[in-house]
Amino acid sequence: MKIQFPKQVHIVEVGPRDGLQNESQAIPTDVKLQFIQKLADAGLTQIEATSFVHPKAIPQLADAEEVAKSLLRKPGLIYSALVPNEKGLRRALDCGIRRLAVFTATTESFTRNNIHMTVEESLQAFAPIIREACANGVTVRGYLSCCFVCPFEGAVSKHRVLELAQRLLDIGVNQVAISDTIGVAVPTDVLETVGFLLEKLPTDFVALHFHDTYGTALANVFAGLQLGIETFDSSAGGLGGCPFAPGAAGNLATEDLVYMLEKMGIDTGVDLQKVVEASSIIAQSMGRDLPSRVWRRLKTGTPSSSPD
Amino acid sequence: MKIQFPKQVHIVEVGPRDGLQNESQAIPTDVKLQFIQKLADAGLTQIEATSFVHPKAIPQLADAEEVAKSLLRKPGLIYSALVPNEKGLRRALDCGIRRLAVFTATTESFTRNNIHMTVEESLQAFAPIIREACANGVTVRGYLSCCFVCPFEGAVSKHRVLELAQRLLDIGVNQVAISDTIGVAVPTDVLETVGFLLEKLPTDFVALHFHDTYGTALANVFAGLQLGIETFDSSAGGLGGCPFAPGAAGNLATEDLVYMLEKMGIDTGVDLQKVVEASSIIAQSMGRDLPSRVWRRLKTGTPSSSPD
Repeated sequence: MKIQFPKQVHIVEVGPRDGLQNESQAIPTDVKLQFIQKLADAGLTQIEATSFVHPKAIPQLADAEEVAKSLLRKPGLIYSALVPNEKGLRRALDCGIRRLAVFTATTESFTRNNIHMTVEESLQAFAPIIREACANGVTVRGYLSCCFVCPFEGAVSKHRVLELAQRLLDIGVNQVAISDTIGVAVPTDVLETVGFLLEKLPTDFVALHFHDTYGTALANVFAGLQLGIETFDSSAGGLGGCPFAPGAAGNLATEDLVYMLEKMGIDTGVDLQKVVEASSIIAQSMGRDLPSRVWRRLKTGTPSSSPD
Repeated sequence: MKIQFPKQVHIVEVGPRDGLQNESQAIPTDVKLQFIQKLADAGLTQIEATSFVHPKAIPQLADAEEVAKSLLRKPGLIYSALVPNEKGLRRALDCGIRRLAVFTATTESFTRNNIHMTVEESLQAFAPIIREACANGVTVRGYLSCCFVCPFEGAVSKHRVLELAQRLLDIGVNQVAISDTIGVAVPTDVLETVGFLLEKLPTDFVALHFHDTYGTALANVFAGLQLGIETFDSSAGGLGGCPFAPGAAGNLATEDLVYMLEKMGIDTGVDLQKVVEASSIIAQSMGRDLPSRVWRRLKTGTPSSSPD
């Protein structure tokens, strides 16, 4: 059976932001910086380093300025940060961040619960932010949550996903992360919804962002690859989840993604063992094992509090 | 993107045998019987209940007779048992087992380490056993280990896999479980090797048996489904591994398999929540969590010794 896959895949590492913001234990700033540095050493070239939200909303990322200002730049490596509003934009730009991310969702219930706006208000709020970012030569990606199922409203139509992705494109976002926020999608959902999006949108505009709640994330990646998708989000160690989505577990683990892609002969440019070492920095700080299957298999000398 | 999948999938539940034989903790016989009964209640129709090996070789299954004789039969439900030799065959037939399984591998090193025979000797040994089983109206499946990678010899050629699968077919086995014993295969491996087998062998002769060491088992199932495979082995809770294969983790979890298949619209006839309850019987007896992602998400009230 001959199926075509991309020869190369871009990984957007979201562990330091999406991962750590959803872990209950806050990580000391110097440990975060070691973690990020090791991820960069591993060859990851797109790392979402933090989020410029209000420190009261996400205390885990209250050190956004310090983290952003201490990042070691190198050619070909892009650090991004999430910004929820204009104040976040200013803080991010002041810290020298050159790629931003904004966040909305397909359903009113999820958007209201998560960012206290309607979907329309979120788009209205982001438009000037994106304009100003672009005027400063800064690019913006958009997270679109609940592209398959919403924890409050159930199944989400592919037409709604296309409508919102199109709106994000229209206001200047140059990539949309189609997100399975609660990790319930299966490969047929990916073929259906993402296949539909790709009839209307350019392939490089679409990234896929999976959570591994029910273990289906890699199967979903395989479905995405068959559609020609070349950008996937993942989180070192499988860190993260979503505090606003009941039942959500960690993100797809970067280790698991790199393992599968490289063994499929798809180039990621990432050194797997170094990602494992990066995750171990956080595991050691938290004093517990991380969900990634590959991390559990390849880690060495990390204290473990769980027997499996 | 239109891809055809089977409408229905047969699951061979190997938890009570392949799962429990590879767990270091022995489970009391009455707990095993409750476990098996709950798996049958869940709608599983092919359950490998035990193995008639020498009790010294696998003490976890030393109660094979007691388990086999106590199984509650019901129409449409087939209990199988692994037999390594003629003595095992007699014991299994005496206990009323009507489906057997034999075991070999693609490489000499693995076969010698595992069953202390050459591959050829194993086939010579099984031929009369299978003849006698068939004469008694008992069918036999064959496990073929290391169909992708051998932990001792590395990559395994698809031609070698076909050769051995063909030999098993020739000596009367009516299904071969193409096994990724150490759980290292990725979907392209499945497309390559299993796609090749299906050019020569009937689809219903081929079952796939994955381990989830690196988290790729469900992605591999998805690849198998695209090839038209209709039978998959799995183990409740993700129990098991392989003591002879360095680094092997648990089998693909039945819960994870059922979740993905049913959400893809593929009928398994299995009640997911009841499989979760079955696994919880073992988790409770062992006093620890099981690897299945879906089990961890859906279990209720099971004591947990791991924080994730």
